[in-house]
Amino acid sequence: MDRAACQRLDQEDPLSRFRARFMSPKKDTIFLDANSMGAMPVTVPERLTSFCTDQWVELRRQGWTHSPWLQRPGQIGDAIAHLMGAGEGNVVVSDNTTVNLYKILTYAWRARSSGTLILTEDGNFPTDLYVAQGLGHAHQDQPKAHVCSSRSELVSRIGADTAVVYLSHADYRTGERWDMADINRRAHAAGALTVWDLSHSTGAIPVDLIGDDADFAVGCGYKYLSGGPGGPAYLWVHPRHAEKGWPTICGWMGHRDVFAFATKYEPLAGAGRHATGTPAVIADEIFFCAAEIWQEVDQNLLWAKHQALGDLTIELLEQECGPLGVTVNTPRDYRQRGGHIGFSHPGAGPVSEALLEAGVVGSFRRPNSLRFGLGPLYLSFEDIWEAIARLRQILEDNRWQDERFQQVSV
Amino acid sequence: MDRAACQRLDQEDPLSRFRARFMSPKKDTIFLDANSMGAMPVTVPERLTSFCTDQWVELRRQGWTHSPWLQRPGQIGDAIAHLMGAGEGNVVVSDNTTVNLYKILTYAWRARSSGTLILTEDGNFPTDLYVAQGLGHAHQDQPKAHVCSSRSELVSRIGADTAVVYLSHADYRTGERWDMADINRRAHAAGALTVWDLSHSTGAIPVDLIGDDADFAVGCGYKYLSGGPGGPAYLWVHPRHAEKGWPTICGWMGHRDVFAFATKYEPLAGAGRHATGTPAVIADEIFFCAAEIWQEVDQNLLWAKHQALGDLTIELLEQECGPLGVTVNTPRDYRQRGGHIGFSHPGAGPVSEALLEAGVVGSFRRPNSLRFGLGPLYLSFEDIWEAIARLRQILEDNRWQDERFQQVSV
Repeated sequence: MDRAACQRLDQEDPLSRFRARFMSPKKDTIFLDANSMGAMPVTVPERLTSFCTDQWVELRRQGWTHSPWLQRPGQIGDAIAHLMGAGEGNVVVSDNTTVNLYKILTYAWRARSSGTLILTEDGNFPTDLYVAQGLGHAHQDQPKAHVCSSRSELVSRIGADTAVVYLSHADYRTGERWDMADINRRAHAAGALTVWDLSHSTGAIPVDLIGDDADFAVGCGYKYLSGGPGGPAYLWVHPRHAEKGWPTICGWMGHRDVFAFATKYEPLAGAGRHATGTPAVIADEIFFCAAEIWQEVDQNLLWAKHQALGDLTIELLEQECGPLGVTVNTPRDYRQRGGHIGFSHPGAGPVSEALLEAGVVGSFRRPNSLRFGLGPLYLSFEDIWEAIARLRQILEDNRWQDERFQQVSV
Repeated sequence: MDRAACQRLDQEDPLSRFRARFMSPKKDTIFLDANSMGAMPVTVPERLTSFCTDQWVELRRQGWTHSPWLQRPGQIGDAIAHLMGAGEGNVVVSDNTTVNLYKILTYAWRARSSGTLILTEDGNFPTDLYVAQGLGHAHQDQPKAHVCSSRSELVSRIGADTAVVYLSHADYRTGERWDMADINRRAHAAGALTVWDLSHSTGAIPVDLIGDDADFAVGCGYKYLSGGPGGPAYLWVHPRHAEKGWPTICGWMGHRDVFAFATKYEPLAGAGRHATGTPAVIADEIFFCAAEIWQEVDQNLLWAKHQALGDLTIELLEQECGPLGVTVNTPRDYRQRGGHIGFSHPGAGPVSEALLEAGVVGSFRRPNSLRFGLGPLYLSFEDIWEAIARLRQILEDNRWQDERFQQVSV
């Protein structure tokens, strides 16, 4: 594999036209951090400027009725639903990931048929674990969060005492992917429900919530989905559970008639009841710029491109940098991979700093692993070649051992 | 009172220089909807543009460490703390008002010493009521929300079975204000705690949380505080309660060491533990533009100006429009008033529509009341004169009875 072969892959890429829909950085930086922060749609600055002057300044409170402020969350949800096999009207854009995890995990606990344990693993993202621990801490009748220390332990532990199986679909460190259909089957056989965190999956790898018979899901808006720094998150409820009871947080946006200003709560029909209070209007407007792109994207082409980028990254890491101390951590088997490729090197921290100076933005995780998050709509195959060529150079000339790279940021 | 007298009041206004810090609309619209949506700081569009190009595009995930994304919520909280007598470090900017109400009401319920009732009144904002009803609905051991139908009933109902007194400081319809110190005293005497919604107060009327011995408070960021449509809300916890236990929603932003990625939850010291997940970075950047203004504002001058605007509004409504069917609903006594002035007219709906056409944006509430929300930093006394002159004209020539105003929006 060489640069010319990568360029040929780019020429044949059916999604290459989407690259121009995202803003390129001024310098020739290659951003491989889509697992942390997705690229910006080019329409965002202009949209924000016109929002500010035409809507905030000229409409003020009339924006609620004269602009689609209240419709945006549903529009965004429907525009990204095909990326996760979610069906129409079931994806609710609201709040941040942590709040949505809390809402959905609490709701799943109440909707369960039996069991006392929330089963999870220590590879789940910290905030996911904290939410579960917080539920267990709150009340005597609340679930006990059981944190397994390995995937095999978790699989063998699913049983009659399991209330909810609560997992990140793809591991935020290694990029390892769960077999969602298999876990859903095992959980349902034991009478348990499943809650999936899709933050490191949606917009990168195949997700088929309805096809794989999941119960609930939550995900981040600002990673692969390019919803903007700190932008709104989403939640998904299988239609069979959507109306099982009142939502965890009853708010006016989940009321049957928002502008009736009724004093009694009555839930909205469907998953929409799980919205809480006032939507994040400006943040939604930003996310909507990305949603306009996502609704044009064929999910099968997206996933195929992402797989090809991942295959190339693994191949080049081993071909170019394997002899220089790099070991790929992420499983070779595509069906076991998430949105990013993880690899280790004894000097991973300083190597990460040297990469930043060389204009390659990946991310470092203690003690010795690096991650390249692959955004399929704006990364080219040649970008991968170039990033790994820069990595090779850093390793070959031992640049990473320089004094200035020893102070490592998170 | 006439236009010239209003102009003299403007000349003597020590806060008049702040008017230029907010964007004026292109047309000569007078916005009297600060109780729904505050005006935009002039710095917002430029700040957003540079945020997008310099931070989102050029930094991507490095924004977490190279930009003040994680510091903004605390900076905003400290910049608005003097407007509510909150002390430093106790105001947490996060989530929306509904989610904060849920977090704080649940926490207050757990922190109570006795009682089974959450005492509230039907003048509380609907989403506040829904949150309380949702808590009562959830579990057997949860509080029962008791919704009083009058203020006098609520006062007399506070007793040994009261766990939490849960009120909006200023009524969103009539603008009537509670005596916060008095209610706190009565609640504490009965062994209960208090939770105040300050959405219709902070940035307009005096609030003194510590001086009045409140326990908890929550408020909206996008009304008087000009935090931007759907912008983040805030919560306040009295230092004596801040560390009474784990927060309701345990998330990574409330963890003792955010970037340790620890698998076990340990709460952050102080009120900061009540933050949940990823902050709303771009929305915080917008709110920060307003916070930069608020930290320059002397709260006593602010409150005096707001009182003077309210006094003038009442005087002119009665002088100019009293004989034309207008009745002021808001109490005359300043100590009983909130941020807006409410008044009624038999044709309030069509009158509101006619006012919109005439460039006066107030708001209508069924069946027959209108509200003028007064933003003290950008409204002039002459604005009030002009708005009420337009109202008088509409009433005098019976324009509001025209066919085209009979279709009334919310």
